[in-house]
Amino acid sequence: MNRTLSISIAQLNLLVGDIKGNSERILKIVKKYDKYSDIIIFSELSLTGYPPEDLIFRSDFKKDCLIQLKRIQKASKHTAIILGHPWYEKNKIFNALSFFYKEKLISRYFKQSLPNYGVFDELRYFTSVHKNCIVKFKNYRLGLLICEDIWNNKIINSIKNAGAEMLLTINASPFEIHKQKIRNNLLFYHCKKFNIPIIYLNQVGAQDELIFDGNSIILANKGKQIYQLNEFKEQIATVYFKNLTLINKNKKNKKTSYIEQTYKALVMSTYDYINKNNFNGAILGLSGGIDSSLTVTIAVDAIGKERVQAIMMPFRYTRKISILNAKIQAKLLGIKINIININSIFDEFIKLIKPIIKDIKYTVVEENIQARCRAIILMAISNKYNKLVLTTSNKSESAVGYSTLYGDLAGGFNILKDISKTLVFKLAKYRNTISTIIPKNIINRAPSAELAPRQLDQDTLPPYSVLDKILKEYIENNLSKNELIKLGFNKKIVYKIIDLIDNNEYKRRQSPIGPKITVRNFGKDRRYPITSGFKNKII
Amino acid sequence: MNRTLSISIAQLNLLVGDIKGNSERILKIVKKYDKYSDIIIFSELSLTGYPPEDLIFRSDFKKDCLIQLKRIQKASKHTAIILGHPWYEKNKIFNALSFFYKEKLISRYFKQSLPNYGVFDELRYFTSVHKNCIVKFKNYRLGLLICEDIWNNKIINSIKNAGAEMLLTINASPFEIHKQKIRNNLLFYHCKKFNIPIIYLNQVGAQDELIFDGNSIILANKGKQIYQLNEFKEQIATVYFKNLTLINKNKKNKKTSYIEQTYKALVMSTYDYINKNNFNGAILGLSGGIDSSLTVTIAVDAIGKERVQAIMMPFRYTRKISILNAKIQAKLLGIKINIININSIFDEFIKLIKPIIKDIKYTVVEENIQARCRAIILMAISNKYNKLVLTTSNKSESAVGYSTLYGDLAGGFNILKDISKTLVFKLAKYRNTISTIIPKNIINRAPSAELAPRQLDQDTLPPYSVLDKILKEYIENNLSKNELIKLGFNKKIVYKIIDLIDNNEYKRRQSPIGPKITVRNFGKDRRYPITSGFKNKII
Repeated sequence: MNRTLSISIAQLNLLVGDIKGNSERILKIVKKYDKYSDIIIFSELSLTGYPPEDLIFRSDFKKDCLIQLKRIQKASKHTAIILGHPWYEKNKIFNALSFFYKEKLISRYFKQSLPNYGVFDELRYFTSVHKNCIVKFKNYRLGLLICEDIWNNKIINSIKNAGAEMLLTINASPFEIHKQKIRNNLLFYHCKKFNIPIIYLNQVGAQDELIFDGNSIILANKGKQIYQLNEFKEQIATVYFKNLTLINKNKKNKKTSYIEQTYKALVMSTYDYINKNNFNGAILGLSGGIDSSLTVTIAVDAIGKERVQAIMMPFRYTRKISILNAKIQAKLLGIKINIININSIFDEFIKLIKPIIKDIKYTVVEENIQARCRAIILMAISNKYNKLVLTTSNKSESAVGYSTLYGDLAGGFNILKDISKTLVFKLAKYRNTISTIIPKNIINRAPSAELAPRQLDQDTLPPYSVLDKILKEYIENNLSKNELIKLGFNKKIVYKIIDLIDNNEYKRRQSPIGPKITVRNFGKDRRYPITSGFKNKII
Repeated sequence: MNRTLSISIAQLNLLVGDIKGNSERILKIVKKYDKYSDIIIFSELSLTGYPPEDLIFRSDFKKDCLIQLKRIQKASKHTAIILGHPWYEKNKIFNALSFFYKEKLISRYFKQSLPNYGVFDELRYFTSVHKNCIVKFKNYRLGLLICEDIWNNKIINSIKNAGAEMLLTINASPFEIHKQKIRNNLLFYHCKKFNIPIIYLNQVGAQDELIFDGNSIILANKGKQIYQLNEFKEQIATVYFKNLTLINKNKKNKKTSYIEQTYKALVMSTYDYINKNNFNGAILGLSGGIDSSLTVTIAVDAIGKERVQAIMMPFRYTRKISILNAKIQAKLLGIKINIININSIFDEFIKLIKPIIKDIKYTVVEENIQARCRAIILMAISNKYNKLVLTTSNKSESAVGYSTLYGDLAGGFNILKDISKTLVFKLAKYRNTISTIIPKNIINRAPSAELAPRQLDQDTLPPYSVLDKILKEYIENNLSKNELIKLGFNKKIVYKIIDLIDNNEYKRRQSPIGPKITVRNFGKDRRYPITSGFKNKII
């Protein structure tokens, strides 16, 4: 028997909740690809965008889903459509996949393996059904899967045993440093072990703190045949099979460093957050330090220099070199910069609170006032011109609470929220390999918040090279104080750092969202109580 | 056979994460009650406090649990102990109950029904096991259950059929208006239907946004025998059974209105948040309006007048009557009040941002500056004296975004976060029935943010009586725009209000936590994306 099959893979960047808009895009593509290929496939919950969170419980949301689903079904003429969408039945909701052909529903599959860890809450929404789905189409027995299913060996075994000849899996698999490799290794493993072609379609684009990297991949012939779609970009590609052999020439994305991938992920995430939320542009405080320099550079790479505005807000402790650096940075990027000195406002505040706070010293109280004055100025411009305030804090600072609530933590989106200081430096250096955009003396300066005279981060913190290692072990790997000390870290430092992390949960809870990059971000990944007696324990 | 059984019920307010501290309290009580009763029972996860959230994944947390669990086991001498705690086995965690007696583990039960909706995420943490647990003790066959289990008819049927003569259930059931009635009705139903005594122990105290009301209850003789423990207070009570008859005289808490219950819930929640987080006291901006008046009154009722400080921060739009009201309010409560006029700071800000924002008008930009100046002052005092800033916003405002991020939304705890404006009035009037503490003219004034001259909330919002009904239907009951219009609400108003709600998710995401009172709070109950195409849809 000589069989052929062509499959178009739509790796799209859709908008969560915009059921009608997503549907219009899908219909347009379906129309264009009708007759062009045998099947066109769309990603997990592509109808609603992923993840729709609690919107999915709304009756109006459900109604909208059903209306648009019907339209898409009717649009399947000569080409079969595989589409991910929620399905409502009685009081249950399923993470579903429909196989439409010639205006008919051929089969509907419900996701079996529902992730409910890390950033995932699928058991809050969906009911799982342990039933495989194999569709016979054009003499192929196609095994249909949704995302987490493919991570479950039991499911793969059973669907293969049931006779599937090819696996088509639709996904919404969030980006994490190094995750793409793990994911591809898994797909290779399955493809090789079972000698089965795998069509793996991933969503692309960013949604709040999540980033979807695309990188859809088609594997055949025990993994020797590979066809990979773009990373961080939309693409619709068509692959052709003759029997189980992939006809397309091998195509593999060039291997990139995790630094480069992270940079691209941050750029896409910033672009999507600003545009999907209809901001006119972005505004931020430029301090002459590396965090704000990297943040503004990513913003310009994301939305263009015309839409990015910088404000330098020096205080009497701000060194001249900082003002100069900020100006140079703005000039190199070609963006507008305004300088607003906050001395007078700060002094006015001090005057006003003097009757209440008598012993004004340059403690954290006064440092916070500086940071908060700057926030008021940025927020005023943001409110006036509908520009998003970009928070410039990094993960190391968020961890130990070295940032001011309603001060430098103010803003709608924190690009570096999941980026440790060590990684900030690496990203800046990486960006300079494309074009020299971040001045060397900004990269090489000793980090300082400049909230007090001659203040340096290292006055009260260990070097970032040490700090970031402790943070990684404590936050990402859940190591205890004792385990950290056993690893060779200084006991006093470990205690100090962990106490700082534990005591600053309240700040993180009110801080803006930012893109998840690591295995455990400060966001949906890490849900700690604010009120906690655990933080004071010595174990 | 003549059997007797005495059970001590420890309705305690424990601290999440403080495994050692909780354990010490439990051990002290066990020592005191040893020989006094046959069994002493402690609530769900009482060892760790409920809910421990992601702390439970930590290896140091696990280790601490196991150490303290052993100590408690060894402490069971003449009295059996029933204790809730997490149990770790291989890679799984169970929400467990241990029955210890004479230093031995008699039985260990794993919760069958794991809630994973609303504020609950138990499937993130625990594995359920569908296996009943009946312990034979002193010739009684005791059926042991944990919280959600009792809401599951299947489980009750099966444990009854397996021979349980008495149900002992340990709980951590969060407070909600009207929930106590639903809970008690359910217990009566089971007790009557199966003619089985039920010992229902609930946790008491507040943890972040959750409130546990206590109200533990013992039912026997088809519900005709009742013994109820305090609401919103710790209590250890002992009940005595002869066969299956309850010996204690009936004791039922007097019926209180939902307003009174809510008031008590807010007071306890404020007390616990401030004290469990080791704040010296609380500080807030008093505006002369009802929200801040009610907030400060609750704070004083919670922690006493000595620990509460008020600041009145008038601007040139503030009416004299507002300043006067604030002063009267402070005097009636006997608290310190400072007056700080923010004119000069505001003017300084306007001067500074003029070069950037040329057309300064009294728009939302300038209104926000006022609110943010006040936040800076409050935060400075908070930082200096370790006093918690109380946010004075209410649920109606949070819903439509009529509050300023980093302005009046600043603060660590928002007592009225889940209280609609209509309920704010009711609570104020209720409080005055105890003692006249909130001046009538504060209650009777037309609500205004006073951020612009002669501004009233009702200039741009429908009356709160209408607004709050729309909010309830949309937020708590998930009704759509069309469904709201069908209920008779004005179309234009419905569209305006819903758009406001949908577009202000970003503000709510950065606002402080506050006690959950309703069936759906802005917090763990309602998880909406910030980036959403659903909000712009007309369905």
